[in-house]
Amino acid sequence: MSLTTGSAREVAIAAKSASHVLATLPASARNEALTAIHAGLTAARDEILAANARDLNLARQAAADGKLSQSLVARLDLGKKGKWEDMLKGILDVRELDDPVGKVTLRTRLDDGLDLERVTCPIGVLLIIFEARPEVIANIASLAVKSGNAAILKGGKESTESFVAISRAISAALETTRVANGAIQLVTTRDVIPELLALDQHIDLVIPRGSNELVRYIKSNTKIPVLGHADGLCSIFLDGSADPTMAADVIVDSKTSYPAACNSLETLLVQESALSTILPTVATALAAKGVELRCDAQSKAALLKSSPDLKVLDASEEDYATEFLSLTLAIKTVSDVQEAIAHINAHGSHHTDAILTADKARAELFMNAVDSAGVYHNASTRFADGMRYGFGTEVGISTNKIHSRGPVGLEGLMIYKYKIRGGGQVTAIFGEGEGKKQFKHQRLALD
Amino acid sequence: MSLTTGSAREVAIAAKSASHVLATLPASARNEALTAIHAGLTAARDEILAANARDLNLARQAAADGKLSQSLVARLDLGKKGKWEDMLKGILDVRELDDPVGKVTLRTRLDDGLDLERVTCPIGVLLIIFEARPEVIANIASLAVKSGNAAILKGGKESTESFVAISRAISAALETTRVANGAIQLVTTRDVIPELLALDQHIDLVIPRGSNELVRYIKSNTKIPVLGHADGLCSIFLDGSADPTMAADVIVDSKTSYPAACNSLETLLVQESALSTILPTVATALAAKGVELRCDAQSKAALLKSSPDLKVLDASEEDYATEFLSLTLAIKTVSDVQEAIAHINAHGSHHTDAILTADKARAELFMNAVDSAGVYHNASTRFADGMRYGFGTEVGISTNKIHSRGPVGLEGLMIYKYKIRGGGQVTAIFGEGEGKKQFKHQRLALD
Repeated sequence: MSLTTGSAREVAIAAKSASHVLATLPASARNEALTAIHAGLTAARDEILAANARDLNLARQAAADGKLSQSLVARLDLGKKGKWEDMLKGILDVRELDDPVGKVTLRTRLDDGLDLERVTCPIGVLLIIFEARPEVIANIASLAVKSGNAAILKGGKESTESFVAISRAISAALETTRVANGAIQLVTTRDVIPELLALDQHIDLVIPRGSNELVRYIKSNTKIPVLGHADGLCSIFLDGSADPTMAADVIVDSKTSYPAACNSLETLLVQESALSTILPTVATALAAKGVELRCDAQSKAALLKSSPDLKVLDASEEDYATEFLSLTLAIKTVSDVQEAIAHINAHGSHHTDAILTADKARAELFMNAVDSAGVYHNASTRFADGMRYGFGTEVGISTNKIHSRGPVGLEGLMIYKYKIRGGGQVTAIFGEGEGKKQFKHQRLALD
Repeated sequence: MSLTTGSAREVAIAAKSASHVLATLPASARNEALTAIHAGLTAARDEILAANARDLNLARQAAADGKLSQSLVARLDLGKKGKWEDMLKGILDVRELDDPVGKVTLRTRLDDGLDLERVTCPIGVLLIIFEARPEVIANIASLAVKSGNAAILKGGKESTESFVAISRAISAALETTRVANGAIQLVTTRDVIPELLALDQHIDLVIPRGSNELVRYIKSNTKIPVLGHADGLCSIFLDGSADPTMAADVIVDSKTSYPAACNSLETLLVQESALSTILPTVATALAAKGVELRCDAQSKAALLKSSPDLKVLDASEEDYATEFLSLTLAIKTVSDVQEAIAHINAHGSHHTDAILTADKARAELFMNAVDSAGVYHNASTRFADGMRYGFGTEVGISTNKIHSRGPVGLEGLMIYKYKIRGGGQVTAIFGEGEGKKQFKHQRLALD
């Protein structure tokens, strides 16, 4: 890793050039680099924690002056119990993952002695823009090295001292390996983000790790593909045939197990026929967890009738387009699954949506028609997570409709290339007509 | 299909809404729609060819006035021998392809009764911008219906009458099917392209089919992902160990079998040690096919010495960054494979590049290090083609590093979604610590 003061353009060109070397390194060389990073950070522990303490002091002052939130200060703290150890363990966890480079995903015999292969390879240069959490830098550097991608890192200014110290340690560690210095570069120049976002000739993918505002800003200011999501407006459709206890459990988990997460529930759509039979059980369970219920007129009337003690507020149209990220839930009555599907496709953020129903056919229709990265039947929206899906790591959760979608593991940092190995074949001998050869197009085994 | 005069925004919203229905149709319904389109066009043959004749008349006048090229006039002509039949056969060919929708590509048991599936699904709304060839509209409409995507079509103004006639026939045919009218819309409004390119909220992918200029314009004027390539600057590295006859065959095929194609050779990099041993054979064969050779000083000197009768011109720096699309070839001397790789990565267009060598290790290094969609060993660059790769159809050839790359078949019009089928599971019961469950993450068979 190098700590650069070069221009955005110089940084990007150096990264591209390093990426071409990185792409040719065997898995062993990339894994050895991860071992070296782990050892380097372990050795530099005191220095890094001292730098982090300096960041923390400044941040605490800023927080006292009301210029920074307390939650940001908390995220900054690398000395917090278990954080340092988790960061180091994360590097070794990434090292142990399957090598994503060079996997053959298609093999076709075009003709005798002329074989086509589709092989996974790194995308090239990643630009990772993140906010305050200093441990992200080690995680991202590991993912980049493992996947054979070069990475340009730009972190939030509150963690500058920590980033520089971590970056120095990683840089020294990589010196002893076959991973070129330009492969991982930390940019500390201020206000360089707009310049970096304009370099679509050299940067292949942007990965923002931070607030919705950060992601939204990046998405609207670059032509480089962005892996991520700005919003997580997840909905559940409560069908009239659902089991009330199951529905209450799933909805409470989706809403309350971590309200600030992107995969938490924001809108509950209730079929008319469930208003008096299932909704009361659900609403009572939510209220017991402190959830504020914002209802349309129909669901409000039903709840006031069945559970007069419940506190029920009126929902505005705006509420159905809001990611509350808190213990507030918008509730709306719909006549059937079709209306629920239309509502979700129009108001949702294409992240994760669920149907609760005993009717399997209705569940399949919902899952096919809802245009979201995750579509669930009788399960909590909170399952949308790379670790829970078993991906070993998570690069981010994408609401894009291109390349990768939903929780994205290492696979999302790969593209493929086509290799042909021949013996001097030319295309002119193939075709229709006399004396021309036909392609064999014989599917070969992948192993 | 509908012929629309609505605003770009109305068109896009109607397409998105239709795409959500299209995504739920079974393969049988999509295939029946293709059968109906085929029958509808067959019945409307005379009307369509009459409309095409009107386009042709106007185009011939414009060509006579020097306002249009003769080659464009030729591309317009649907009455040309075999063209109509090929267009109709293409629809049935697409119908016969494997259904790309609903393929399960990952299946994981998260816990008993809680299964995760990754399933292919349509991307959503495609915007296809093409130029004069009227048969493209039938091809694109077929690919969209087959893949379950809605499509907005915008064709060049020279073919307007043909497009409108074809569109009417397809529209009438779709009336009898389950594919909604808004699923395929032809936009005939002038100057609507900039508006369409701004609708990244509603349009998921742009596919330009036309000149380099068109693709370049689109790429620099939209944030919607673009499937395609502006340039095809393909190179071959001629290593000193290559067989001279093989090298001459492959290079002649790559350069001369269709010089205007994007997969044709533009730059030949020659290892120093091949200058006097292999290049003369290659250059003589190229000259016999009428290829103009533009050489650097070193290769020129070598050729003048070995083959004094050859006509050899001086190459400029500009020539190594030029896609000639004609019988002109830039030749440059390099010291070794590393220099060739660096040259190609810096000057090429990441389309298709080849190495000619008897040294397998060198070939593998080249194929891993060259950052292109196609990397070949001892084979013509002209193999880069969806039909030749055995994909059955070709949506385009992409030089992107995201989503799809190289020749793109129906697969390139698909993304995936994650489905979870559960029995009311919540996330709160999983985790570390006492009484918490662990995920099973058991890989299940795909069939």
